[in-house]
Amino acid sequence: MNFKSDNTATAAAEIIAALTAVNDKPAAPYSDDPWSRKLDQVFSTLFEREVRVFTVASGTAANAIGLASAVPPWGAIVCHREAHIECDEAGAPEFYSGGAKLMLLDGPAAKVTPEALEDALARKARDIHTVQPAALSISQTTERGGVYRPEEVAALGEIARGAGLAFHMDGARFANAVAALGCKPADVTWRGGIDFMSFGATKNGALAAEAIVVFDLARAEEVARRRKRGGHLFCKGRYPAAQLLAYLDGGLWLRLAARANGLARKLGEAAKAFLCEPVDSNQVFIKPGVEALAKLRAAGADFYDWGAAGSGEARLVVSWNQSEADVDAMRDALATLR
Amino acid sequence: MNFKSDNTATAAAEIIAALTAVNDKPAAPYSDDPWSRKLDQVFSTLFEREVRVFTVASGTAANAIGLASAVPPWGAIVCHREAHIECDEAGAPEFYSGGAKLMLLDGPAAKVTPEALEDALARKARDIHTVQPAALSISQTTERGGVYRPEEVAALGEIARGAGLAFHMDGARFANAVAALGCKPADVTWRGGIDFMSFGATKNGALAAEAIVVFDLARAEEVARRRKRGGHLFCKGRYPAAQLLAYLDGGLWLRLAARANGLARKLGEAAKAFLCEPVDSNQVFIKPGVEALAKLRAAGADFYDWGAAGSGEARLVVSWNQSEADVDAMRDALATLR
Amino acid sequence: MNFKSDNTATAAAEIIAALTAVNDKPAAPYSDDPWSRKLDQVFSTLFEREVRVFTVASGTAANAIGLASAVPPWGAIVCHREAHIECDEAGAPEFYSGGAKLMLLDGPAAKVTPEALEDALARKARDIHTVQPAALSISQTTERGGVYRPEEVAALGEIARGAGLAFHMDGARFANAVAALGCKPADVTWRGGIDFMSFGATKNGALAAEAIVVFDLARAEEVARRRKRGGHLFCKGRYPAAQLLAYLDGGLWLRLAARANGLARKLGEAAKAFLCEPVDSNQVFIKPGVEALAKLRAAGADFYDWGAAGSGEARLVVSWNQSEADVDAMRDALATLR
Amino acid sequence: MNFKSDNTATAAAEIIAALTAVNDKPAAPYSDDPWSRKLDQVFSTLFEREVRVFTVASGTAANAIGLASAVPPWGAIVCHREAHIECDEAGAPEFYSGGAKLMLLDGPAAKVTPEALEDALARKARDIHTVQPAALSISQTTERGGVYRPEEVAALGEIARGAGLAFHMDGARFANAVAALGCKPADVTWRGGIDFMSFGATKNGALAAEAIVVFDLARAEEVARRRKRGGHLFCKGRYPAAQLLAYLDGGLWLRLAARANGLARKLGEAAKAFLCEPVDSNQVFIKPGVEALAKLRAAGADFYDWGAAGSGEARLVVSWNQSEADVDAMRDALATLR
Repeated sequence: MNFKSDNTATAAAEIIAALTAVNDKPAAPYSDDPWSRKLDQVFSTLFEREVRVFTVASGTAANAIGLASAVPPWGAIVCHREAHIECDEAGAPEFYSGGAKLMLLDGPAAKVTPEALEDALARKARDIHTVQPAALSISQTTERGGVYRPEEVAALGEIARGAGLAFHMDGARFANAVAALGCKPADVTWRGGIDFMSFGATKNGALAAEAIVVFDLARAEEVARRRKRGGHLFCKGRYPAAQLLAYLDGGLWLRLAARANGLARKLGEAAKAFLCEPVDSNQVFIKPGVEALAKLRAAGADFYDWGAAGSGEARLVVSWNQSEADVDAMRDALATLR
Repeated sequence: MNFKSDNTATAAAEIIAALTAVNDKPAAPYSDDPWSRKLDQVFSTLFEREVRVFTVASGTAANAIGLASAVPPWGAIVCHREAHIECDEAGAPEFYSGGAKLMLLDGPAAKVTPEALEDALARKARDIHTVQPAALSISQTTERGGVYRPEEVAALGEIARGAGLAFHMDGARFANAVAALGCKPADVTWRGGIDFMSFGATKNGALAAEAIVVFDLARAEEVARRRKRGGHLFCKGRYPAAQLLAYLDGGLWLRLAARANGLARKLGEAAKAFLCEPVDSNQVFIKPGVEALAKLRAAGADFYDWGAAGSGEARLVVSWNQSEADVDAMRDALATLR
Repeated sequence: MNFKSDNTATAAAEIIAALTAVNDKPAAPYSDDPWSRKLDQVFSTLFEREVRVFTVASGTAANAIGLASAVPPWGAIVCHREAHIECDEAGAPEFYSGGAKLMLLDGPAAKVTPEALEDALARKARDIHTVQPAALSISQTTERGGVYRPEEVAALGEIARGAGLAFHMDGARFANAVAALGCKPADVTWRGGIDFMSFGATKNGALAAEAIVVFDLARAEEVARRRKRGGHLFCKGRYPAAQLLAYLDGGLWLRLAARANGLARKLGEAAKAFLCEPVDSNQVFIKPGVEALAKLRAAGADFYDWGAAGSGEARLVVSWNQSEADVDAMRDALATLR
Repeated sequence: MNFKSDNTATAAAEIIAALTAVNDKPAAPYSDDPWSRKLDQVFSTLFEREVRVFTVASGTAANAIGLASAVPPWGAIVCHREAHIECDEAGAPEFYSGGAKLMLLDGPAAKVTPEALEDALARKARDIHTVQPAALSISQTTERGGVYRPEEVAALGEIARGAGLAFHMDGARFANAVAALGCKPADVTWRGGIDFMSFGATKNGALAAEAIVVFDLARAEEVARRRKRGGHLFCKGRYPAAQLLAYLDGGLWLRLAARANGLARKLGEAAKAFLCEPVDSNQVFIKPGVEALAKLRAAGADFYDWGAAGSGEARLVVSWNQSEADVDAMRDALATLR
């Protein structure tokens, strides 16, 4: 019963197969191969508008390179206090941007709210002595499993545009959000004002396939240059490209995500009595107390404690290929806690 | 007859197979999996001493992160004028180091000579107004196919140590050099004073597997931190690790490199009349003139012009899986030029 | 009645005179002149131990260069939420350090408390995914006029040392604190564990004279290199040096600061009913309400609103050469508010 | 007979007087005072067009902040191999720009020639693997005393514009050039395509007064932000401003420079037999041989050796207030060498 993270999962067979399929003859290096070149077209279709796609090695790189292309060194990136870019990237956004600052907002389910955003912008001096808000970054899904609905993205986008902020989405678990919402990818991205996003596939079935998707094409050149300088222009671009093409092909990405979401909902129902957050995607946050968590572990469950030390809170993440048996066992274990 | 670069080649079947083999069950993320943890041990055996190994997405990343860990922002990296870190990395070493400078030396076959190094160090002021030489970086093999013999590495290493320089090796084509020399990996690295190196596998049969190998263990912590901030700590570290393990297993890496070297020698013999450099590895530099190059292309050969525009020079690179037929056809085409 | 800031004040006659005095003949450039070289000795005497002193153009530069010399790019600087380095330097610490992060603590009078520090350190993960606390920075006096007593500095210093943090002091108004405490400069600096500090003179009577004072001599070389790269090694070092020598000569710095402190106390007594903070130095924080502040301004007073918009709070800063008449008039104006 | 550098000289009486004159009452900080605000107007008149002026603490800061505002991190700054920004700033341009690279050209008298510039641009690949030329920087006067005539600046400016390069001038000794040419400041700056310059006064009679003059007003905002982050926004801006106003007032700057130039010409005539460069400004480069230099030193002369070690070359710099007696004595000493 390993519910530590979806990054512990293997890669999907379809994606492994795609690697083999492109491994048959020489191809141009540095993303000038046919598969890499096809990415722009496939993602443009997916997003119902012209986009540019840049593969990189990690979600951290996707976030940091993307943000650096929109935020000057004296800029500030507004985000939630629990955002991955703040908590889990060891300062990569600061590194890539040349020392920008993160401005942290509070909000339920790790979501940025219009109120918190407006309040922060109103309080921020615009003089020479302080950093200038330059981008808003949100995570879809959020670090507490929250999902922004299209109108929520649009509300933030409107404020961002009004304040002259670029609007960025960390889509490490974008598939889970789209699968949960049943919407078009466009509905929670550029239609809501998103200028560029990190599009993650690794957690949902790829080996290593993360991409920066640029809706605001004027940023593409800078993203390309920064990617190269960061060492993220793959020598043999066909392999990350092939993973992404297989990931999108026939809706594989949404099938995998929907399965994980569905199993998470099962766990959520079993844990209803001590849920901290609604279960909107493939993450389940529970607070049954320290003793109860020990009991779960004794029953064979593996997961991370969450929140402050000793809070008795935990996070359960369901992977794309989590076994039904695992989930059923966990459900039973949770049931004993009530 | 594609001799543009070894980075156009596919991945070896053994390496694809290794990906499948590690794809069977959940594993800890962020290089805490069994395969990643095995890397240190396998490389320590290979190099006959304790080392630390850090996988990254590209040779550029390996070079830049490694160098940044040894060179302060006010430092200078001494290297050959044609070094990859100077010519082909879009300033990645400057980016990762916070703005260090490269000090460029001339030398035959793109090799740094002891004389050029000593001369440059002697001429460099050590005052507050200028950058301070902090590292020497050499490429093995070099960007013109040259190979440093153990005693050549050692001679440079002695000067570097005497001048307080860290000693770095860009081993994008390290396999070709070791195969050509028939020596132990240790003989052309730490025994000659190398403190850390970029160990490349991508050009010689991997999909994407580059590593920073740290001989001076005191640098390991900083390399780890800089790798994370650069977005090069893979989420699912098992896949690059598995590639490297397969690459080294049973000497695959040397077999592949030796094959490419051997075929390059064949081309070298056919092109003896207009060779610019001795053929020490899998690269062949010829200067038959502009017309002759056009003739080669008309015959179906693909390669890069080299040197100054209109110099009539070209580079032919033989890949690990270049077909004998390709090489024979090229040999015949070269023969017609004499 | 201008109480906006002590940086609006002129320079003291003694300091202007010192500039003229050193202006008589050629002198070595780049701080190799007799006056610059005397700085180390004079400050060593002042601080009762060997120190190294580096003049720079601003307090921002002093803070940022000093901190960058102690904090790696993946490090975090722990400081109060209202610290100058966080609020008023437009990200200079992030710039100079290559993208370090600031970790913000709360505490009364803009002071870092041992409890807040220990709590923050306890909560901070020490893994690869996050920045690592590397320095503690406190302001003496603080941005709300607070003054750390020797035992308070020492208590923080002990925690910092235990956690492996360098300990930095922003001494933009160090003179006001020392004058208020009546202690030795050493008592609130290195004796309490301070490793390096920004020593400000500009706000207290100089034209432009700020210095980095390094107690931990091992840091000196790096400070020197970073100063040069930041463009803060003055071409004609004698002029900032002469200002600092005159500033310290015969205790001028403490006389000027004590005078300002005394006048501020006068204001504090007049404003007793609506003081937000104890008046420990030359800053007075009052919260008489929005209407009362308007009344003060109507009476001819000039000052900054403080805190959140509409909070009815204000800051009054007394300069080294504030006229008694100004202070008396302000006292009268304050008296009318009760 | 101290001819080491004009940075050893004192400040002019007029400039010291100006400091006293502005020292009479409170003034707004951070360059919001009347004198700082007057700078834009006075420089606009001087340059016969609207400009923005930003004071900083050193020529190194002026160059690095200016260039960083025009050159992205992946950009290259084209300059002469002996340029101050390459040789004497310890990598400040690299630091401020986030790791840009300098592309070095050769040329007589340390001048960039149109041929060298065009050749370098033609040879430079414009692909993703290398830095992109983004600015041309020239020094007026050059590091070997050369002076660009208006038509020479214009010729370079035309090439720069054609290649999309920003055009920068390091004017550490701008006064000497304008005095020598007898032209309008505009003639060798924006009329020839200069977008922004470092305007130096320190070497020619100020205490510490260097400024970034921005002709391309679109760059002004970024310069202001980068100046602040570099710690170069002076707390009490009136003092550097007052120096610059006095420097320009009534043509003081040109009188001082013309005097130094004239004395240098005297030396140049005496040294005609072993001049390395024409004497166009206040610097004299001679190559009388190692023994002759020893003789000069024995006669009481102080100066720097120049060029390679043992080359027998030397640089003599005449300061704005060099005594006639010094110059006469040096002339006599030089005469004995013939």
